[in-house]
Parts: sequence; structure tokens; C-alpha cells
Amino acid sequence: MKSLDRLIKCFRRLQGVGPRQAERFALHFLRAPESEVAEFTEALLKMRANVHYCPICFSYSEGGLCEICSDDTRDDGLLCVVEEPKDIEAIEKTGSYNGLYHVLHGSISPLDGRGADDLKIKELVERVQNSEREIREVIIATNPDTEGESTSLYIADVLRGLVGKITRIGYGMPLGGHIDYIDEMTLSHSLKGRTKI
Amino acid sequence: MKSLDRLIKCFRRLQGVGPRQAERFALHFLRAPESEVAEFTEALLKMRANVHYCPICFSYSEGGLCEICSDDTRDDGLLCVVEEPKDIEAIEKTGSYNGLYHVLHGSISPLDGRGADDLKIKELVERVQNSEREIREVIIATNPDTEGESTSLYIADVLRGLVGKITRIGYGMPLGGHIDYIDEMTLSHSLKGRTKI
Repeated sequence: MKSLDRLIKCFRRLQGVGPRQAERFALHFLRAPESEVAEFTEALLKMRANVHYCPICFSYSEGGLCEICSDDTRDDGLLCVVEEPKDIEAIEKTGSYNGLYHVLHGSISPLDGRGADDLKIKELVERVQNSEREIREVIIATNPDTEGESTSLYIADVLRGLVGKITRIGYGMPLGGHIDYIDEMTLSHSLKGRTKI
Repeated sequence: MKSLDRLIKCFRRLQGVGPRQAERFALHFLRAPESEVAEFTEALLKMRANVHYCPICFSYSEGGLCEICSDDTRDDGLLCVVEEPKDIEAIEKTGSYNGLYHVLHGSISPLDGRGADDLKIKELVERVQNSEREIREVIIATNPDTEGESTSLYIADVLRGLVGKITRIGYGMPLGGHIDYIDEMTLSHSLKGRTKI
């Protein structure tokens, strides 16, 4: 059954989808009412046509600037650098940040063939240099893994002298964690990052 | 971002896909090259246009009879009744069955509002009655769960007198299982179904 196999192959390209799940997805669309298939393909093509990168922060946006960049109430002296657009959502949910964002679209990872030029780092430097308002602080919120760490160091390096303050998100114990279960690197960071009470 | 949310909602309809995975899928298609999106939508629509039920066994088929029904070397005096087309694949992989199949497309499940009329049972009876070749045996290979069991009993009932032999797949210990770990129902079936060595 060539047509079915072809669709299954398409679903396999989605991250984390194995052969059985891909087959289930394909069969779902085989059995779905015609209206659902039409709605799905239309939603897919409309999304492709409408959603673009925000020209300032490179998050996703539906036409023009994204919601955050076009929001006058945000603090435009504060810039948080993240790897992916979905990281913005996570930070927004905390409700404890009111600055702007900059999306790198990945991290520096020589093993995966991703260098600094493949990320929106040049754009970040230009943005900081050409900003009308002085940027007081750049918070680097890349992931606390090997790639995120080197990306963070690289960015701190290229921004040095351009902004007043460059900070990195804090490491430590996750809330609800157990000291005897946490890995030693985290615990060591947690000790170093201790705060007065 | 309306377009993105709409596509995420479409992906949520797939069985077993949660909010985060649906978002990942949508973002995959946002970043994918134009060619991959075109290939995907074309594969989906072609599959919908080409794949139909086989008019004899109700498995999937690409135009006309399915591969098994149109295969002259299969034993057409033997009929295996399964719940879903994917069950056929599982049985074919064993290499120990050479008869034909009949797909019910589900099992009798009053809780889900699925009765005998929603399955291809009427079609099974007609097929057995109108078969040119006498059908020696109908093997009922519905799943060994509550719904599969009642479906099996129901089918045995309506086929009684129409075929020489009606059988049910055997229950017992799965190979590699441990007697002290298996549930008692299976073990009890395994004892009842003992064979001479």
C-alpha cells in the first residue's frame, strides 16, 4: 500500500515518533471524516503562510512584530536571551519577568554542526548596538546543558562592553527536590549560589 | 498566534498526543522546508484518495481487492476474523497462517456505544453464506479482552450452522513469561489449554 506507507514515512520525520505511532497517525487520517482532513491541511498551510519570525526578537509572530515586542508596557532596557520560542512561554508563565526577549534558535553544538553563525547571535549584537534605549542588562537563559553553557559563554564574550550587565540564570535545587537524590553538579552549584536569609 | 494554535488543536485530535507533543509537531512543520510540507500534504491527500476498504475482507486496499484477497495461493477455505487491519499484519508476520481474513473494524462495546451493527458482522455472515468455496473453518482472532470476548461469542453464535468449524485463538502463557508473574486468569487458561507432549 504505497500511499499509506508514504504518509507513514512523512510522520516518521516528526521528532520522537516511532513506526507504530506513525502508522496510528496515518490510519487516524484514513478514518477521519473528510471535514477533519480538510481542516487539518488548511490549518497547516495557513500556519505556514501566516506565521513568521518577529523581525526584532526572532520569536514567532503572525504578521509584523510579535506580541511582546509590540507591547509598550514591557521594560525595553532588559533583554532575555533564550534558545527557542517555547522557552519564552515558560518564562512568561512565571509572571516574574517583564523585559524583552531574543531567540537564538538553537545552541552552539559543534557535534551537530551548529556554529555561532547558525544562530541569531549577529542579530543580537546588532540589536544591542542599535537599540534606541540603552539595554541595562542581558539575561542569558540558554539551557543548563553543555551546549547551552558554551553558547552562554560565547554570547557573554561578544556582548562584553556593549551592555552594562550580563547575567546567567541561577542554578540550584529545583523546588520539591531531595538533597540526597540530586546530582552533585547541581548541589555544588546550589551551594555556591546560596543566598542570605 | 491563531494559526499556530489552530494547527496544534488539529494535532491534539491524534490519539495519545498531548499538548506539548502537539506543539512540537506544529513547530516542526513551521520550521520544515517548504518541500517537506508539500510532500506531507500531498501524501495525506493522495492516501485519502487512493486507499479504500477491500470490498471482500474490509482491510485497507489501494484500488480493487487487497493483496491477500487477490492472492490465488491463499487457502480460501480458511477465514480469520480480526478487529483491525493492523491485526492482519501481526498475524502475517508469524508466517503460520495462509488463509483469508475478515476485518470487523472494532469490537462490540456497549460502553462506547458500539453494537454489532457498527461492525462488519453482517458482511461476514453474507460472505460465508455466498462463498463459492465452502469455508471449512472460521478462526476468531479478536483481542482477548472483555470486548473481544463478547464479540467472539456473538460471532460464533451468528455463524453457527453456516461453517463446519468455528475456533478461537488459544490462550496461555506468553513465551518468555514467568509463571509466578503471570495473572491468574491467563495461568488458569494456560492449564485448561494444556497439550500433550
